[in-house]
Amino acid sequence: MMTLNDFKAAREVLVGVTRPTNLIYSDFYSGLSGNQVYLKPENMQVTGAYKIRGAYYTISTLTEEEKAAGLVTASAGNHAQGVAYAAQAAGVQATIVMPTTTPLIKVNNTKSYGANVVLHGLAFDDAAEEAARLAEEQGLTYIHPFNDLRVATGQGTISYEIFSDLPDVNVILVPIGGGGLASGVSTYAKLLNPGVKVIGVEPSGAASMKASVEAGHVVTIPVQTIADGVAVKTPGDKVLPYIQENVDEILTIDDDELVSCFLDMTEKHKMIVETAGLLTVAALSHLEELGIQNQNVVAIMTGGNMDVITMSSLIQHGLIGRGRVFTFSVHLPDRPGELLRVAGIVAGQNGNIIKLEHNQFVNVNRQQGVELKVTLEAFGHSHKHSILEALRQEGYDAQEVLTIM
Amino acid sequence: MMTLNDFKAAREVLVGVTRPTNLIYSDFYSGLSGNQVYLKPENMQVTGAYKIRGAYYTISTLTEEEKAAGLVTASAGNHAQGVAYAAQAAGVQATIVMPTTTPLIKVNNTKSYGANVVLHGLAFDDAAEEAARLAEEQGLTYIHPFNDLRVATGQGTISYEIFSDLPDVNVILVPIGGGGLASGVSTYAKLLNPGVKVIGVEPSGAASMKASVEAGHVVTIPVQTIADGVAVKTPGDKVLPYIQENVDEILTIDDDELVSCFLDMTEKHKMIVETAGLLTVAALSHLEELGIQNQNVVAIMTGGNMDVITMSSLIQHGLIGRGRVFTFSVHLPDRPGELLRVAGIVAGQNGNIIKLEHNQFVNVNRQQGVELKVTLEAFGHSHKHSILEALRQEGYDAQEVLTIM
Repeated sequence: MMTLNDFKAAREVLVGVTRPTNLIYSDFYSGLSGNQVYLKPENMQVTGAYKIRGAYYTISTLTEEEKAAGLVTASAGNHAQGVAYAAQAAGVQATIVMPTTTPLIKVNNTKSYGANVVLHGLAFDDAAEEAARLAEEQGLTYIHPFNDLRVATGQGTISYEIFSDLPDVNVILVPIGGGGLASGVSTYAKLLNPGVKVIGVEPSGAASMKASVEAGHVVTIPVQTIADGVAVKTPGDKVLPYIQENVDEILTIDDDELVSCFLDMTEKHKMIVETAGLLTVAALSHLEELGIQNQNVVAIMTGGNMDVITMSSLIQHGLIGRGRVFTFSVHLPDRPGELLRVAGIVAGQNGNIIKLEHNQFVNVNRQQGVELKVTLEAFGHSHKHSILEALRQEGYDAQEVLTIM
Repeated sequence: MMTLNDFKAAREVLVGVTRPTNLIYSDFYSGLSGNQVYLKPENMQVTGAYKIRGAYYTISTLTEEEKAAGLVTASAGNHAQGVAYAAQAAGVQATIVMPTTTPLIKVNNTKSYGANVVLHGLAFDDAAEEAARLAEEQGLTYIHPFNDLRVATGQGTISYEIFSDLPDVNVILVPIGGGGLASGVSTYAKLLNPGVKVIGVEPSGAASMKASVEAGHVVTIPVQTIADGVAVKTPGDKVLPYIQENVDEILTIDDDELVSCFLDMTEKHKMIVETAGLLTVAALSHLEELGIQNQNVVAIMTGGNMDVITMSSLIQHGLIGRGRVFTFSVHLPDRPGELLRVAGIVAGQNGNIIKLEHNQFVNVNRQQGVELKVTLEAFGHSHKHSILEALRQEGYDAQEVLTIM
């Protein structure tokens, strides 16, 4: 059972450990969704994600023997950093098993919080098995990332902060991976106000909780999504009943919506939010379909831990998806002045060249001997089409090609 | 004169217009600088920068005739968006002259706030001349970006918020461009507590205020810096006396420090802060030289408006600067299996390949007929060197080459 007293205990334990992440009112998303939208920025939380809440609270409930034995867990991401930080803060030794494919920056961050990192296996499941083996072999205390009511209770403290900032909240959007966060948040929210609506959000490619709720029991499904933080094949059986009871609805979001959302979040709110953390923000566009309008809506953004190379790549995909960056290829006669002519047409259309690739070996026909690839910045799809049209009207075989900068 | 009453009036006018940007305590920068460091995130302000403060307050002081005439200003950046937004909020028409080189996204944002945008000239100075001409010709009311005490008073309201959040602040770091922000912030801060230290920060390549303070009068210097938001050749003569009186010291920061800082800000604080806005954060590493240790320090981050293409490019430069991304070139005999061997050596060193370029036309000697360029992710410079060393020990002529992804 997660009771009001448990949540209160968790809140008290977390004072001075977690950072208050005040709600941010969003003009942009309010306009977009027809509601008053507030963002709960757990990407700005200590360790860059909400996971510290559940990890620290769980550690606080352990016996001296369990703490002395040392902790172990498996995670490729935020839970690893949350447990490592919380363990250090509580003066307990922690071993974190991470897949060998984990981005270097996350491995380094976890080590920087003083944890002993073991790299093992290719995916989370392999790492989890190794963690279980180490727990058994060395008598370590296992901290599950989501299927533990103490962990869920810690995560649930987010609800109290939402109600403190915005007492008349009507709707809370919460991402679902294994169900730890969503069970804690929804249960505490309904205890505070049974009238509040809680909507869970999963990626379309990893909607294992939706499938489990529909089946009436935990099911395992294959997963495929860029939202790696919530790519969970089998949700937690201990938290499922709380989701069934307290989550009113589960929405699903496609990967391309997350890409587009990432760009908006950096441009409109100047924040880095990881793909899993953007699920609730992407869900804002779907509220009208549910008849939710003119309500006070809070979207929980769970974390901001993303390696910067992925970040660059997301930005580029986002720009291409909106026609704000595109590449065209033209074949030019191999003679002086041709590059200048193409550049002139592009400039006349206010296109801004970011990259040029000039390849002289594509064709033995000197009339079309050079392939030029030009990457441009534009205002969007209609601007892109007028640039391509202008080139064609001047006799060039301009074709859009897919390329990444 | 900027008096306590003026600042109070500005504060009252701004209630409900600006967003409270609460101080964020930074573990990372506190550790780095040996102080208790708090960030003032004006990148999260409405319009993405503090400029709304001065613009809105100035408009509130205009006569009905001045407002009815319409406003005009020149800016390539945050001031444009601040004036456009403030004018719309106050129900006044605004014309903004922007250089034709302004990134499309900033032009679009300014238009989206309802302003009439005129693109003119290549640089700010050309746009400013055109704005002055329009003001004269059409009788418009000119709102200067920095050389106006009303504008400076509006910007100064930041100081009040700092003292509200952190009454025992010892040091405030403020960026200097033309001097509007720095004069307002320093004057108000000293009125609130004469004991507080205010340190101005300029880019080394555009330290026109430092030069002016040293000369005892406003001087004009050539400027060259990536911090385009503060690349001001001639600071304001009306605000200079306030800087002389209330800014205790001016530090200068190199461009490469800003690049490195951008990466830290995205990774450690999940925030996008433009280069000019990072000046004060980069200055934190210099506090020890000034004997400032164990103090409560606030770094004002002025804005987050940056086009995302520049953002991607900054990230890449930052990663390369730290050896976290690098490219090497090797020449391979033109025969099967060679690529596999190189890939094996890299994998053995835990290098993560991000990009491959394979060019078969570099050499007629088939023993060295193929050039392979490999871009890798690494932990840093020493990891980079061990990867290169491992390749050389296997007989490859691996050379680091400079390249941008």
